[in-house]
Amino acid sequence: MGNMIIGQSGGPTAVINSSLAGAIKAAKANGIEGIYGMRFGIEGFLQGQVVDLGNLFTDLHDLSLLKRTPAAFLGSCRYKLPAWEKDEETYRKIFALLEQFDIDKFLYIGGNDSMDTIQQLADYAAAHGRSERFMGIPKTIDNDLPFTDHTPGFGSAAKFVATSMKEMIQDNESFGATDPRIAVVEIMGRNAGWLTGATVLSKDPECCGPDLIYLPELPFDEDDFVARVERIAKTKKSVVVAVSEGLRLADGTLVCNYGMDASYTDAFGHRQLSGAGRMLSNALSYRLGYKSRAIEFSLLQRCATHMASRVDVDEAYNVGYIAVTKILEGETGKMVTIQVESREPYVSRYELHDVHGIANVEKKVPLDWITPDGTYVTREFVNYVKPLVIGTISPYYAAGLPKHLKLRNVPLCPSPGNEP
Amino acid sequence: MGNMIIGQSGGPTAVINSSLAGAIKAAKANGIEGIYGMRFGIEGFLQGQVVDLGNLFTDLHDLSLLKRTPAAFLGSCRYKLPAWEKDEETYRKIFALLEQFDIDKFLYIGGNDSMDTIQQLADYAAAHGRSERFMGIPKTIDNDLPFTDHTPGFGSAAKFVATSMKEMIQDNESFGATDPRIAVVEIMGRNAGWLTGATVLSKDPECCGPDLIYLPELPFDEDDFVARVERIAKTKKSVVVAVSEGLRLADGTLVCNYGMDASYTDAFGHRQLSGAGRMLSNALSYRLGYKSRAIEFSLLQRCATHMASRVDVDEAYNVGYIAVTKILEGETGKMVTIQVESREPYVSRYELHDVHGIANVEKKVPLDWITPDGTYVTREFVNYVKPLVIGTISPYYAAGLPKHLKLRNVPLCPSPGNEP
Repeated sequence: MGNMIIGQSGGPTAVINSSLAGAIKAAKANGIEGIYGMRFGIEGFLQGQVVDLGNLFTDLHDLSLLKRTPAAFLGSCRYKLPAWEKDEETYRKIFALLEQFDIDKFLYIGGNDSMDTIQQLADYAAAHGRSERFMGIPKTIDNDLPFTDHTPGFGSAAKFVATSMKEMIQDNESFGATDPRIAVVEIMGRNAGWLTGATVLSKDPECCGPDLIYLPELPFDEDDFVARVERIAKTKKSVVVAVSEGLRLADGTLVCNYGMDASYTDAFGHRQLSGAGRMLSNALSYRLGYKSRAIEFSLLQRCATHMASRVDVDEAYNVGYIAVTKILEGETGKMVTIQVESREPYVSRYELHDVHGIANVEKKVPLDWITPDGTYVTREFVNYVKPLVIGTISPYYAAGLPKHLKLRNVPLCPSPGNEP
Repeated sequence: MGNMIIGQSGGPTAVINSSLAGAIKAAKANGIEGIYGMRFGIEGFLQGQVVDLGNLFTDLHDLSLLKRTPAAFLGSCRYKLPAWEKDEETYRKIFALLEQFDIDKFLYIGGNDSMDTIQQLADYAAAHGRSERFMGIPKTIDNDLPFTDHTPGFGSAAKFVATSMKEMIQDNESFGATDPRIAVVEIMGRNAGWLTGATVLSKDPECCGPDLIYLPELPFDEDDFVARVERIAKTKKSVVVAVSEGLRLADGTLVCNYGMDASYTDAFGHRQLSGAGRMLSNALSYRLGYKSRAIEFSLLQRCATHMASRVDVDEAYNVGYIAVTKILEGETGKMVTIQVESREPYVSRYELHDVHGIANVEKKVPLDWITPDGTYVTREFVNYVKPLVIGTISPYYAAGLPKHLKLRNVPLCPSPGNEP
């Protein structure tokens, strides 16, 4: 039996390392001898940056700590392989490295772009009659991969944004005796509004939830937005709006870019960059005269492993594990998907899907899961996302802070790319 | 025995409700009959907004949920009483309300400004031979109250910023194969750098911590800052800087205001507001050409009760409890303080201090706890803050999100201010 290599790619999530842990566990359980990891995804691999994961994880405790470690343990990249028909050289290099390490199983944890990598490699192998197999493990807080009910990483990000939204709304309501206080909260998601919509979960018997939710699936109308906030502020002192970073005006202009031309510099002479949330918060301050605050959850929404969802951690682990068992069964050019049998009680299972049709495709929020006025999500959306945030996994603490596992001072395996 | 009233004031913290819970518990344990709460602090009280806390908390489970609830349960205000010698009318109104509810014990949870309220009321009572007593309960994430080792609220905010910083640094290090990635993280604290300094706790065997820490206690030099980041980025791919929102240039200008003149508007015609972190992140992008990201922890750092420190929750509860027992013993015009007998093992006890000397005074970070080059904190600072983040208090969860207690639809007690 040949060896295995695994890599992580794209923006990290709170549970991308759970998938890595699941894959390592499966590789060990199935007696795979050489278990390698790429540093910094395919980009690092092309430079020969390979570590020996089999040796690194001889202690099972480390795997459970790995599940509790945010960000990409192996390092990540945003590197898209060229089309293999146009640049065979890159592929010859990759396959030479695979041969060097006697690797016939290649797993890649990532989103749309990463599935393109799996597709290219599997297609190249097929076209050249090679026996190496390639398997995708889904991962993205954006939840925009097709043919899977949802993606690992999304549930934990949803839990973090909903929890933070709930805590923040409590805070914003503290000053009820005075003028209206507005908060515009910007959530990640350039083209798909799944995570922004998940802020709806903060709405429960003790919290009113966001007053308005704007997803990038529909064009944004500033005048209508301002008028709605003004109307809401007449009846309640705290108004909280969730907006996607990727909101666009009807003409396609990104709200965050509107007005951001080159001449727009501060006294340092620097061009000022801004987000959609800040633009809209400023619009409210300016047009309504209210105290408005822009809040960006920023990187926290994808790295807050201390708030990870148990369902998400477990599913992330399972897709990693199953990817290995399936590649051992001879599958290639596929991605593991999650299929939900029942949302209540929550029952999910795993399948495979051809990466063709997944790579480079973005699954957006169905338009009929957005209210007709475009300012909230429907009951269907709530039912969809609700089970994905259930359960907690407590961090291991030392000195009051969560412990993480760190890949540091681990020697690279000798390869042509990293010789002294 | 007369009745008691308690209020919350200023910016909320993750544990301000723990102090409220401690005070209610002490009031019940000591047989105080009427236990009232002010809605929205002294501002709401002046409008006669009073609720009956004794009736509300008949179930002890509610008190433990109250300890896990962020923001000001009773509502808060930023309202400073006029000097009593200049506006006796306001004071006559307050004391008339106290008489109406037969209140002789007045407790106020807050920071510097709130202690001014206690001072004014105690001074007025003394000058007019009145028997009502007034007691301050410390609270602020800024940790800037004198005569107390630290303030409740600070430890939990420190735990949140250090945890988030640690998770975020892991994330920022994920892309090590490419160009340097800079993050400038802005932390609350206009004049005192305690909370910004607490990001140092993220430095441990598995995390390098922030590379630079800038506190508002020292003037900020942009050229030196840019040069340092450039130097660090030569040896590591991820550079993370913690800056206080209140950084000022040598001439006193707030970094966040620099260049923010009235003509500085975007294409909507809105004046753009920015924070110190964003200004400095833009400076790095512009001057060094690096990818730089500004991150603001914003309200999350003061309302993330899900990440509260056990030491902080317990001390917050205790200062609330002790304030009641001390006011029952006849004390007035004082604030409960925390005195640390030993930092390791951590042993703290409680004392009282005259609010004169506390009100309106800000305790800053000692200059010799900042490194000579002004870009980090010393070992003394670390030893000071370390014990304050220890321990966790798990939220109660429902549907995957932390449960909170909400004051809603609770009728106000009849008073002249709120009659129909």
